[in-house]
Amino acid sequence: MRAVEVDEPQIQAVTANLVWSDLVGRHNYGVERLPVLLERVRKGVINRSCRPQFTSLSDSVQLLIGDDGFGHYVCELAVDRAIQLAREHGVGVVGVRDSNFSGTGAYFVHKAAVAGMISQVSSNSFPKVAPHRGTKAVLGTNPFAFGAPRRNDRSLMVDMSTAAIAGSTIREYVRKGRPLPEGLVIDADGNPVTDPKKGNAGTLLPFGEAKGYGIALMVEILSGVITGAGVSHGVKSMYKNFEESAHIGQFFFVMDVLRWMPLETYYERLEGLIGLLKAGGSPDDVQLPGENRWRSFASNSANGIQLEAPTLKALTKIAKECSVEVPWSET
Amino acid sequence: MRAVEVDEPQIQAVTANLVWSDLVGRHNYGVERLPVLLERVRKGVINRSCRPQFTSLSDSVQLLIGDDGFGHYVCELAVDRAIQLAREHGVGVVGVRDSNFSGTGAYFVHKAAVAGMISQVSSNSFPKVAPHRGTKAVLGTNPFAFGAPRRNDRSLMVDMSTAAIAGSTIREYVRKGRPLPEGLVIDADGNPVTDPKKGNAGTLLPFGEAKGYGIALMVEILSGVITGAGVSHGVKSMYKNFEESAHIGQFFFVMDVLRWMPLETYYERLEGLIGLLKAGGSPDDVQLPGENRWRSFASNSANGIQLEAPTLKALTKIAKECSVEVPWSET
Repeated sequence: MRAVEVDEPQIQAVTANLVWSDLVGRHNYGVERLPVLLERVRKGVINRSCRPQFTSLSDSVQLLIGDDGFGHYVCELAVDRAIQLAREHGVGVVGVRDSNFSGTGAYFVHKAAVAGMISQVSSNSFPKVAPHRGTKAVLGTNPFAFGAPRRNDRSLMVDMSTAAIAGSTIREYVRKGRPLPEGLVIDADGNPVTDPKKGNAGTLLPFGEAKGYGIALMVEILSGVITGAGVSHGVKSMYKNFEESAHIGQFFFVMDVLRWMPLETYYERLEGLIGLLKAGGSPDDVQLPGENRWRSFASNSANGIQLEAPTLKALTKIAKECSVEVPWSET
Repeated sequence: MRAVEVDEPQIQAVTANLVWSDLVGRHNYGVERLPVLLERVRKGVINRSCRPQFTSLSDSVQLLIGDDGFGHYVCELAVDRAIQLAREHGVGVVGVRDSNFSGTGAYFVHKAAVAGMISQVSSNSFPKVAPHRGTKAVLGTNPFAFGAPRRNDRSLMVDMSTAAIAGSTIREYVRKGRPLPEGLVIDADGNPVTDPKKGNAGTLLPFGEAKGYGIALMVEILSGVITGAGVSHGVKSMYKNFEESAHIGQFFFVMDVLRWMPLETYYERLEGLIGLLKAGGSPDDVQLPGENRWRSFASNSANGIQLEAPTLKALTKIAKECSVEVPWSET
């Protein structure tokens, strides 16, 4: 990033975000995104020296105009501001426009949780998902996240794409040579696509039929419509459009738990619920949202992050292009 | 309600809510609930003369202690206060405890939408839903609603149970003698229940697997954990427990659209998105959340509400018990 003259605050924010995603085992939001991100910087559609501007819409609501900076950076500013507003006013809302791909929502709800905050974070994205019972892509995979603090900073993190299947999961079906189940991807006539190789050319369905469609639409309204960001086809693809700004929007809703009750009372109430959930089935089966991520975090923090060979190869390639020496031996 | 000495403000709120639900075609939230509600009043677990109390947690966050009043009434107070807070501060949050069953969330998000507000409303409820991959009921059907204003007050209303299937839908399968599809209801060993007659004795699964489980858990934390309401088994069944207060909690998040942009600009942006959604498939197939309800509303407002015979019979029965003359001829 330094070699392509990204400014220092953005480098810090993007690095922390990508490496955290790899640590929690979500490699599709990790350093494997660096090549496309740097390509976008070089093409000028991510602004290497952005100057995001906050506007106060009320005492506890602000709009952040992202100046086409890295989404990871712009959203870090946004969540920090929303936390500050929530500290002062009990609740903080920040809408973001002129932003870019910001990675996993879990990163931001976790940041809020560590500050003692309950939060919701969402982002719209390039259209890939049909409305329920429709055939054409109108909505993005529009991720939605919810977070709540737990003792020891191992936050509860709900984090989902509102599409029935993620692009990275389709690639996994391709690798394993398994057919896609019906109800996930359709072709232009609305017929199910089961050949995983044709999955990425198809249109995704929303998760959970009409309900997931409702959540995806909520994300589009909160992150896109009211922020003044791009809406539907107004949002541009990160991988296919290197001529135009992405026009992505994000939405942050943060609430200070302390206004409701002392933190210890809250922890006891939440852990009581978690105890019941864990007792609601075999302990190996019932997971708390985020639990897998924290298991990966512990293991990867101790043993290091294992990158896939194609990721390492791609990183080596851009390092060479930028005349940066890599600290690993070439494979 | 007057015959069992419910006080006047509650009568007004409950009536408006139940009749609206019947008008929009959601009879399972309509007057068919009156018999059980009045039974709860007579048993003293719904407070006929409640005195709900607001506490300010911050300038834009308040807690409402419902004093075991009708949920429909308590939540009307809550959404009105959240709208007022949002008008003054851009955003308003109201948490509710010591409440009861409040009917459909759509009623409240619509009320906020007519006031020019975007909103989220949720309620926890008596445990009927297993955690994802679990077997025991820990979470309620925990309904979640989202609303946004449209021109002509025909609000966009997302309103869902976070369970894979509603009790009323199971009853429909019974009536039609059709087997339940797998993935909706399980027995104590976690095996699928396909006999619809055994559906209500089984445990429901969350909608959309892990994702719906995440949304259901979010609802429990927002409506139950932080409000001080009952959590999981701390919430009592409306139909099975006439000895204890229900201890239900609700959560309202309301935002004033006007702080973000002029209403006309917002309408244009939203209707642009809606146009794309409608063009995303056959016009008969693609629905906007709430569209079916408004179609029923128009038809029922013109032609009257058609109640099912068992509902009419039950209403006639309680009317007799209360020495109230019914304005219809007995069937």
